[in-house]
Amino acid sequence: MLVFIIEIIGTVAFASSGAMVGIRKKMDVLGVIVMAVMTAVGGGIIRDLVLGIHPPNTFKNPIYVEYSVLTAVILFVVFYIKKQMLDSKALFYYEKIMILLDAIGLGAFTVIGVETAYEIGYVHHRFLLLFVGVITGVGGGMIRDMMAQQIPFILVKQIYACASLAGAGVCIWLMPYHKSASMILGAVVVVIIRILAATYRWDLPKIE
Amino acid sequence: MLVFIIEIIGTVAFASSGAMVGIRKKMDVLGVIVMAVMTAVGGGIIRDLVLGIHPPNTFKNPIYVEYSVLTAVILFVVFYIKKQMLDSKALFYYEKIMILLDAIGLGAFTVIGVETAYEIGYVHHRFLLLFVGVITGVGGGMIRDMMAQQIPFILVKQIYACASLAGAGVCIWLMPYHKSASMILGAVVVVIIRILAATYRWDLPKIE
Amino acid sequence: MLVFIIEIIGTVAFASSGAMVGIRKKMDVLGVIVMAVMTAVGGGIIRDLVLGIHPPNTFKNPIYVEYSVLTAVILFVVFYIKKQMLDSKALFYYEKIMILLDAIGLGAFTVIGVETAYEIGYVHHRFLLLFVGVITGVGGGMIRDMMAQQIPFILVKQIYACASLAGAGVCIWLMPYHKSASMILGAVVVVIIRILAATYRWDLPKIE
Repeated sequence: MLVFIIEIIGTVAFASSGAMVGIRKKMDVLGVIVMAVMTAVGGGIIRDLVLGIHPPNTFKNPIYVEYSVLTAVILFVVFYIKKQMLDSKALFYYEKIMILLDAIGLGAFTVIGVETAYEIGYVHHRFLLLFVGVITGVGGGMIRDMMAQQIPFILVKQIYACASLAGAGVCIWLMPYHKSASMILGAVVVVIIRILAATYRWDLPKIE
Repeated sequence: MLVFIIEIIGTVAFASSGAMVGIRKKMDVLGVIVMAVMTAVGGGIIRDLVLGIHPPNTFKNPIYVEYSVLTAVILFVVFYIKKQMLDSKALFYYEKIMILLDAIGLGAFTVIGVETAYEIGYVHHRFLLLFVGVITGVGGGMIRDMMAQQIPFILVKQIYACASLAGAGVCIWLMPYHKSASMILGAVVVVIIRILAATYRWDLPKIE
Repeated sequence: MLVFIIEIIGTVAFASSGAMVGIRKKMDVLGVIVMAVMTAVGGGIIRDLVLGIHPPNTFKNPIYVEYSVLTAVILFVVFYIKKQMLDSKALFYYEKIMILLDAIGLGAFTVIGVETAYEIGYVHHRFLLLFVGVITGVGGGMIRDMMAQQIPFILVKQIYACASLAGAGVCIWLMPYHKSASMILGAVVVVIIRILAATYRWDLPKIE
């Protein structure tokens, strides 16, 4: 039950980030919905394609899609009615809160990605476990940015994929000893790193 | 036989839209061919990857690829010889006709997508049926726009994915009663909505 | 052993081209690594998804990923320490050499792609063999350009995909007679065409 609530929080946060990009890029309501859905479930779809899970879980259990659509529709309606809110102080605080929820989603999706591959039996394929963990966490955001014609956020700014990578590493390392504990700890690592990075505007080195 | 002719019409229309974007973006002849092929068969490839059909049908039966290549080569040669035609009145009418043929393709591909998943046995996975129907219809166009570095047309302008969505819905709803009738009706719904939207320049609401 | 060395040469050259685009687009160090890895192994991943090889080979044997990461880190550190080298004469010669190594990689990956599908049993699916050969060769570069928000190089400039296409054709044509010979000859055809095209700046016709 707790896992489910955390997953829904993450889904709503991811869907919200997709919908906001869609609204800013002046997409129509269906475009905004597509952006929200792909951001929320895109990472999981890539993971399942790589692991050979057909059809991807999202399609068998569309509850996350439903929450994504709902999120997109609510945001669209709110900003359609009060367009000036797009520049408001309220939005500023809304996006602050969303950074927290998004971090929770990133943590949850990362460890769920690792676990999915682990359960199928890829126990010793460490690189595969790492990859599916990170792609489940950041894949949706990459698809969002590529659809919106932006260079993927995770490639240029702040510690985002890096937080997912660290958490996936912790989760993979501890998984042989205790599954639940490894997942919780992995997710917590992601959330802490991501929140610290967002608060103190940590960036990885780059050449400018 | 009729189905085959309709599919070829759709293939040529989709390939033509891909080739025209390639020509406008000053791609070379091979780039124009790649754009035409991916626009025509890209949606079906995504569908088959999602459904776990390996290799995707396109590769087992490349007739649609052949028609796409032919379409691209003819268009390229015509505009290579008479470049001024790119701004001509004739092109204007050509693109008007293509909107009609494209709508026929959108309708055909949508219901074929639904049917493909239905035949495999996903009878009760309504969201999956809807997704594969729409992605078969619009996936090629999304790939085209992402390759050409444009925000996907379907996310910003006119009732396009929405027409596909409505037709897929009708098709899924009626499929348990009569397969052929549900497919024909679904495709007709797509074509009518799309043509009306293109004629009267209907747009979904957006925030501007 | 020779095959392995050639594959590593190709991997390093592809990773280098991805890393350089990442550095030029001012991505952070992780972004540069992701660009390098995806350019090097992206084509093989698409090939394996299309052929239904789960998980893709890259994940079972991550040696190519390791060389890609190493390449990216070295390049990043060098240019981080001496930023002025980005405009230097040395870089000019480095990129000249890389064109040669890249051509070797293009040749090797193309024929390995053809062979992978051939070994699985798609002996008579000529279009599939051609597609997986070319996509193994050029897929990574396409992903690189789409992530960096550039129109894929292969669609606009010089004989690149075309070289891969010709080599794949030769390889497929001769494969029933002698596997090793067909692969060597196919790869040599790719390298020769690509080097000639780069040296004499051959372009396919385009409409300008």
